[in-house]
Amino acid sequence: DVAKDVDESLIEKFLAEVDTIHIQENLRELTDVPHMATTPGDEKTVQTMLRRWQDADTGLDDAWREEYNVYLSFPDANNPNKVTVVDAANAVQHSIREREKAYTSDQDDPEVVQPYAAYSPAGHAKGKLVYANQGKPSDYEQLSQTLNLTGTIAITRYGGAGRGAKAINAAPYGVVGVLVYTDPLDINDGFMSDTNETYPHSWYMPPSGVERGSFNRDFGDLLTPYLAAKEETYRIPPENIVGIPPIPIQPIGFEDAYILICALGGDAAPSEWQGAFNCTYNYGGPGFKPTSEFNNSDVKMDIYNKEVIKNSANVMGVIRGSVEPDRYVIYGNHRDSWVHGAIDPSSGTSVMLEITRVLGWMVKQGIWRPRRSIIFGSWGAEEFGLIGSAEYTEQYFAKLSERTIAYINVDIAVFANATLRASAMPSLQNVIFKASKEVNAPGESSTSVYEAWKLHSNRTSPTHGVIPRLGYLTGAGSDYAAFVHYLGISSIDMSYTYDRSKTNARIYPAYHTAYDTFDYASKYIDPGFVSHQAVARTAGNILIRLADSLLLPFNCSDYAEILEDYLNTAVTLYQQQLEAHKISTEPLKRAVAMFRTNAQQLEKMIHNSDLANETPLKVRRINDQLMLLDRAFLDPLAFPDKYAFRHVIWTSSSAGKATFPGLADAFAQAESSGLDSDWDKVHYHLSVVSQAIEGAASTLADVI
Amino acid sequence: DVAKDVDESLIEKFLAEVDTIHIQENLRELTDVPHMATTPGDEKTVQTMLRRWQDADTGLDDAWREEYNVYLSFPDANNPNKVTVVDAANAVQHSIREREKAYTSDQDDPEVVQPYAAYSPAGHAKGKLVYANQGKPSDYEQLSQTLNLTGTIAITRYGGAGRGAKAINAAPYGVVGVLVYTDPLDINDGFMSDTNETYPHSWYMPPSGVERGSFNRDFGDLLTPYLAAKEETYRIPPENIVGIPPIPIQPIGFEDAYILICALGGDAAPSEWQGAFNCTYNYGGPGFKPTSEFNNSDVKMDIYNKEVIKNSANVMGVIRGSVEPDRYVIYGNHRDSWVHGAIDPSSGTSVMLEITRVLGWMVKQGIWRPRRSIIFGSWGAEEFGLIGSAEYTEQYFAKLSERTIAYINVDIAVFANATLRASAMPSLQNVIFKASKEVNAPGESSTSVYEAWKLHSNRTSPTHGVIPRLGYLTGAGSDYAAFVHYLGISSIDMSYTYDRSKTNARIYPAYHTAYDTFDYASKYIDPGFVSHQAVARTAGNILIRLADSLLLPFNCSDYAEILEDYLNTAVTLYQQQLEAHKISTEPLKRAVAMFRTNAQQLEKMIHNSDLANETPLKVRRINDQLMLLDRAFLDPLAFPDKYAFRHVIWTSSSAGKATFPGLADAFAQAESSGLDSDWDKVHYHLSVVSQAIEGAASTLADVI
Ligand SMILES: [Ca+2]
Ligand SMILES: [Ca+2]
Ligand SMILES: [Zn+2]
Ligand SMILES: [Zn+2]
Ligand SMILES: [Zn+2]
Ligand SMILES: [Zn+2]
Repeated sequence: DVAKDVDESLIEKFLAEVDTIHIQENLRELTDVPHMATTPGDEKTVQTMLRRWQDADTGLDDAWREEYNVYLSFPDANNPNKVTVVDAANAVQHSIREREKAYTSDQDDPEVVQPYAAYSPAGHAKGKLVYANQGKPSDYEQLSQTLNLTGTIAITRYGGAGRGAKAINAAPYGVVGVLVYTDPLDINDGFMSDTNETYPHSWYMPPSGVERGSFNRDFGDLLTPYLAAKEETYRIPPENIVGIPPIPIQPIGFEDAYILICALGGDAAPSEWQGAFNCTYNYGGPGFKPTSEFNNSDVKMDIYNKEVIKNSANVMGVIRGSVEPDRYVIYGNHRDSWVHGAIDPSSGTSVMLEITRVLGWMVKQGIWRPRRSIIFGSWGAEEFGLIGSAEYTEQYFAKLSERTIAYINVDIAVFANATLRASAMPSLQNVIFKASKEVNAPGESSTSVYEAWKLHSNRTSPTHGVIPRLGYLTGAGSDYAAFVHYLGISSIDMSYTYDRSKTNARIYPAYHTAYDTFDYASKYIDPGFVSHQAVARTAGNILIRLADSLLLPFNCSDYAEILEDYLNTAVTLYQQQLEAHKISTEPLKRAVAMFRTNAQQLEKMIHNSDLANETPLKVRRINDQLMLLDRAFLDPLAFPDKYAFRHVIWTSSSAGKATFPGLADAFAQAESSGLDSDWDKVHYHLSVVSQAIEGAASTLADVI
Repeated sequence: DVAKDVDESLIEKFLAEVDTIHIQENLRELTDVPHMATTPGDEKTVQTMLRRWQDADTGLDDAWREEYNVYLSFPDANNPNKVTVVDAANAVQHSIREREKAYTSDQDDPEVVQPYAAYSPAGHAKGKLVYANQGKPSDYEQLSQTLNLTGTIAITRYGGAGRGAKAINAAPYGVVGVLVYTDPLDINDGFMSDTNETYPHSWYMPPSGVERGSFNRDFGDLLTPYLAAKEETYRIPPENIVGIPPIPIQPIGFEDAYILICALGGDAAPSEWQGAFNCTYNYGGPGFKPTSEFNNSDVKMDIYNKEVIKNSANVMGVIRGSVEPDRYVIYGNHRDSWVHGAIDPSSGTSVMLEITRVLGWMVKQGIWRPRRSIIFGSWGAEEFGLIGSAEYTEQYFAKLSERTIAYINVDIAVFANATLRASAMPSLQNVIFKASKEVNAPGESSTSVYEAWKLHSNRTSPTHGVIPRLGYLTGAGSDYAAFVHYLGISSIDMSYTYDRSKTNARIYPAYHTAYDTFDYASKYIDPGFVSHQAVARTAGNILIRLADSLLLPFNCSDYAEILEDYLNTAVTLYQQQLEAHKISTEPLKRAVAMFRTNAQQLEKMIHNSDLANETPLKVRRINDQLMLLDRAFLDPLAFPDKYAFRHVIWTSSSAGKATFPGLADAFAQAESSGLDSDWDKVHYHLSVVSQAIEGAASTLADVI
């Protein structure tokens, strides 16, 4: 039936079927062994996904694997990376721990990869130690004002700058190696002791815990920009890769960082640089203080990471749409972890498997088939830089651009038990709200996910009053990146998360460590899996509405509201100086006003239509306008230095202003340099964003 | 009726209504005065278009003007460009004619612009004359082997290289100014005398005739790349424009070129450099021969061109579609000429006005409304670089990309009376053939346009046997460029043209001269306007079929045939050397084979469907696959040095091979340099085109 709308009773059935025990058992199976990308454990999860999605009773219409040959970086199991303190005679005075301390047997699995910095070059570095705070450009700048950094090793803490940036920022100062650790201040609310404070006594990171990670800046396979990484695809020479550390870098636990930092000489670092250790964080002499046993000693790094091209698999599954099979709703999460990955990513994968179990069962029972096609993606090698999802979008760029309604990403499903967190294009705000109103908050019977969310994080909308605060997808933190930034597909990224009044942790403390296990997840993140259930219900509800609604549940006026917000910020922050440089903001104002007018007209037209009795082509026409709205914001040439960032509203920005990113970054640069050529770039970005908004607005106008 | 197909009786009605007298009178009105872009004569044609398209009985649903502020270049009417021969004392020995000789009163109109090279810099140059053949890189290279070109003025003939390239190629050798003329060998089949051979005695160019033109390389407004040139749009500094002459250049008539060239000293130029003058073309001493009255004299150029930003208008008109108003068929031609422009472009505009008269009349009578919307564009400032159409595609990029079925361009409708010439994406071959079979060849009652075409120019297709030869849209010769290369819209460019056995003229001899008038067109190009009529009927027939067919008349297998042809050429020419450099052609072979397979599957599926009784959404789904096929070949990053060229199959190429252009150019470069980095680029382009073809093929497969 081409005029059939979403069936509310079916959504109720879906919500009722989503089950905590299934999610728990999914997680148990997925976290059985470490499953870092391309390892045997990863292949085991591939088989799990295929078996589930091909199940005769609860599987999808079809499921298969798709492989890419991608550039990864691993430590050498036979020759572990070593960080030591050595005296003048090169005698080792202290060795940094090579494996995290095991509290449960699974943490002792030989497949637990040594902590390392993926894409750090191999190499040997030795030098006096300095403390460089978070490794930001301003940190090294400040440090270099009193110290000559040439030949030093810098120890930095996580936060404030991207992982790889800590080494990239250091190299110009002559720093030869970088260590990075997680300060208990930033992750443990200050707690440090594993005798009673940290895991297994709580969710806090134990002293030997180390956050692994990928130290690249750009996403996707680094050797095949804009080309799917197939066997015979052209690869750039590895020496041409940009955005990876030029000098060795290695992550260590705070147990070792404590020993190193508290022994540092030199002046005391400023108060913002101080962490939770019970000592003063000094800059370093460079090197250790004369009173330390390490006096005159160097820190030595011996890094044996190897880059290798390996075969990484996505697992794909589909439910074919009944009326519009050529329209896709895509739902995805990565499958690979650093170690057992119970929370990252298996909490999300457990949720995805529960959603597909219920939907697959409804399809196999013959009680449901979505109007539009649903594609599920279990992405490979996300931890190395969103590789599986990025390669997928490169391979199928045209098809996905033309046909994709929306992309839903649930990576870490549950960070904590307090509230929903969702980031999305503003046009999807309404369907997220609608779905979250229909799901009970975890463990609640009378409070909805929506109400709990609004309580924890809200804003006042000129149109809607007080509503939950929806985030923006301006970054590249998970697999939504290629969909948002490269393809311009309206996307959602969501999870359950913290009560920020209860913790300042940057992220859940076991993140990317050997402690992210089933035990940890079930005891400290989501006992009873009720938050997992709430996320599965909310995300699944959204998924069904996107797939089944006769009229796509997109709201253009909510997009207009955010554009107006961005405009107001730009006018407040920039207009005076723009006028001083004879750059008019009128085109931008006109564009935003036109977007608002056309959005209202479209909504009025929809409101005045009896869609169930309209011709299917009229409904399709409106749906095409809605589906393609975000595509109109793409400009493949506007950000030549940001790989695959094309969406002029959501592109990443370093200016830190809630406004148009190209304009904000160009303005910051021009204000700082004062160069005419930089003010030209401000004018350029103002024209780019004005034209994009006007172009998007014109797609919302009457179609001819 | 959503299932209604094209009405053949309506096409017959259209064909019967298309009338030679109307076309003739259109041409008379349009060529009344010179109508160079942004002049009062241009505004007069704007008013003509608006009046016709807003006519109550024969107009369109709506018509309006759209303006852009574009960067143009004009001579100074108060200070004409001068080219003289001066002796050592700077006394003028000879002055090049500043206006063409008038044979009719309209050629004497003060609004006839002085011959000039648009975008040539103003400046004064003086030096010894040399003859540089066609101004190709190889010509200057050869000349420089015996002569020091520093400080010389080069005289070149049209042909062999782009207009501006003749100056760009010269500058590195120290040449300070360039003249360009049309050799009678290249345009007049050798005829030179206006006493009895050239116009007004024939269609040949009179001795004082000068081809004007734009001497830029890239299309679109030069100051606003990728941005629509609105008043407040960011403009690059003029000094950053690339692809325009770095030294003064001026076109002159062959009457003057004869005097200069036949007086040149130095060695005789090779035989391929010789033209039709009754003297030996020497290289120049540099300078004139000792026996010439110009012995020791210099050629002096005083160029006063001025660049100015002016307001140029497109005139747009629409007929709203009844069933799928959000699908556009666009038909366009430029409106601006260099002088009276009877053939270029007014022959095409006369045809467009006759098509819109008949279609408008059918709409106003209520006997027809197209299924899809039809947009007509009367583009401004094409002669300066396809500016009006390019700015239009920049402004409405998203909307046009999403909704445009096809673009039909008829610029010069009739070059000559012999045969149809059409270039198009191969998927449109079939509808062009179908339409051309239904139209009588000019002045014939039993031979179709198709038959005459096949007689003049044919090829043997593996599928269809002997068929007319359809050309490729690899260049940027008219307003189709932005549609083909920037937007990836399936396009057609067509006209009536020569019997090549009867003339070797590069183009019709009055091209871009003051002789391109109504008198010339009606006497020598198309007496009786029967070829105009044939073009109007053929183009209109195609237009109606594209707008009204239930299933779009696109044939994907015809595209596959050309891809296979390109592949075979690539394998023959390149495979051996590619293998020697360890570059596999397998991905390309697999991609082309996949394209063929998927095209056949789609056609089989269509064949097995009863489309009139299918749901409208199924038909729309297939039509979307067909419409968007060319979009899948776009890569906005593959050709960074070619402005707005994104279509990896049809992008311009300098290698001169009928195969994939990026591959061909990269191969030529690598073969010539032998550098590993250049072979890397070959591999890159092989991956780019393979991925694009595979991506396109995947859009033809079953939609999920
Ligand atoms: Ca890639
Ligand atoms: Ca422009
Ligand atoms: Zn993750
Ligand atoms: Zn992660
Ligand atoms: Zn033309
Ligand atoms: Zn022209």
